[in-house]
Amino acid sequence: MSKLRLAITMSLDGYVAGPNQSVEHPLGEGGEQLHEWAFATRTFRAVHGMEGGATGPDDDIAKEYFHNVGATIMGRHMFGGGDGPWGDKPWNGWWGDDPPFHMPVFVLTHHARDPLEMKGGTIFHFVTEGIDVALERAKDAARGKDVTLGGGANVAQQCLKAEVIDEMNIHIVPVLLGDGARLFNHTDGQQKAFECVRIVSSPTVSHYKYRKRSSGHD
Amino acid sequence: MSKLRLAITMSLDGYVAGPNQSVEHPLGEGGEQLHEWAFATRTFRAVHGMEGGATGPDDDIAKEYFHNVGATIMGRHMFGGGDGPWGDKPWNGWWGDDPPFHMPVFVLTHHARDPLEMKGGTIFHFVTEGIDVALERAKDAARGKDVTLGGGANVAQQCLKAEVIDEMNIHIVPVLLGDGARLFNHTDGQQKAFECVRIVSSPTVSHYKYRKRSSGHD
Repeated sequence: MSKLRLAITMSLDGYVAGPNQSVEHPLGEGGEQLHEWAFATRTFRAVHGMEGGATGPDDDIAKEYFHNVGATIMGRHMFGGGDGPWGDKPWNGWWGDDPPFHMPVFVLTHHARDPLEMKGGTIFHFVTEGIDVALERAKDAARGKDVTLGGGANVAQQCLKAEVIDEMNIHIVPVLLGDGARLFNHTDGQQKAFECVRIVSSPTVSHYKYRKRSSGHD
Repeated sequence: MSKLRLAITMSLDGYVAGPNQSVEHPLGEGGEQLHEWAFATRTFRAVHGMEGGATGPDDDIAKEYFHNVGATIMGRHMFGGGDGPWGDKPWNGWWGDDPPFHMPVFVLTHHARDPLEMKGGTIFHFVTEGIDVALERAKDAARGKDVTLGGGANVAQQCLKAEVIDEMNIHIVPVLLGDGARLFNHTDGQQKAFECVRIVSSPTVSHYKYRKRSSGHD
C-alpha cells in the first residue's frame, strides 16, 4: 500500500530551516548546513546530475529515500519564489530545467496555476484544495508506490496534525541554528503516535526512522 | 578554570520533561523515558546506592559527568515540592536522606530557606538572588572544579540566555513526547554560539557535546 513518508533534516535545536528565508537564502540563514550531509552522498549528487560523492551509511539512507517513490508533496515555500500570486514571469523552482525529482510533484499553494512540465520527468502540479486533496492526487499519481513529503515545516506540521503520515525519517545534524522554522510546532503532539524503529549514525548526521504505532498498541 | 556544564536529556522533539509535572510525575507524563538510559548505567546506579548496571559508551558518558565536579545548580522544579512558599513541612527533594549529589547543590527559588544538610555530603542551598549569584556561589563552593547544571528547562534557558554556559552535554533519546518543557525556547538563540565537538551513540541514546566557540572565531 502506498505510504506517506516524511523525510526532513533538522538541527539539534529543532529547526528545519534557518531564519529569514529569501531568494538568497532559500533555506534561511545558516540553513544550508542542514543539507551538507545529503549533498556529500553519491546518490544525491547523481540525482542532481553531478559525479562523485561518498558511499557509506549516509549514502545508503539517501538511496533508501529514492527507493519505491512515485510522487512528492512540498509546500510553496520549498518550491520558492515568494508568497502571493504567481505573476507574469512565474517562478519555476530552485532546481533549473531538470529538477532532481523525475516524478510528479504536488505543490501546496493558495494560488492556482497550470501544471509545469520540466525535463527529466518532473511535473509540478499546484494544488489549492489543501493537504487531503494533494495527498489523494499524489497517491493516485504514485500508482502504488510511496509518496514522499520533503517540507517545509508548515506542510509537515499540517500532515502530522492531520495524522496522514505513515513514516518519518528525521535526519539530525548537530548544528544549532538558534532560530528559524521549527518542525515540532503546531502538531497537536501527534508525533507521539510514532515509535523509533531504527537509528543509523555517521560522524555528521544521525538518521532516525519512525513508524506510526498500530492503533492496537497505542 | 571552573566551567559551567549543562547536562540534560532531551526527546528528539525537543522536550526535557513531559507535560503536567506533578508529585506523581516529577518529570511530567512520559518524562521518565528520558532517563532510562542513565539509570541503566553502572555509574548512575552506584551514585544512587544501587548495584549492577551496564558498562559501555553510556556509562563512560555518565562517568565523565561526575568527573571533576564540585557543585551543582538546579531549578526549583527539579528540586520539587510544588511552587510557592516552603511551608511548615518543607519538601526535602525527590532523593531521600542520601541524595545522589554528594556536593553542594544550589537551588534557584523565589522563596528563601535555610541550607538543608543531607547525608553523604549533599547540602542544598536555596538562592533567591537569581542565576548570577547562584553561579558565583556555586563556583566558590566548587573550589576550582566545574559546576554542573541539570535543569529544568527554565534554569537552562536562563543560563543560555545569560551566556554563562561553557559546555553543553545534550543526550538525545529517540522518544517523541509531543508536549512538555522545551529546552530551546526563550534563549534568544544563544545556542548558536556553540559548536559540536563530539558525538557518542549507543542504541538507545546519542550524546552530543558542545563547546562555546571562542569569540575570535564566532
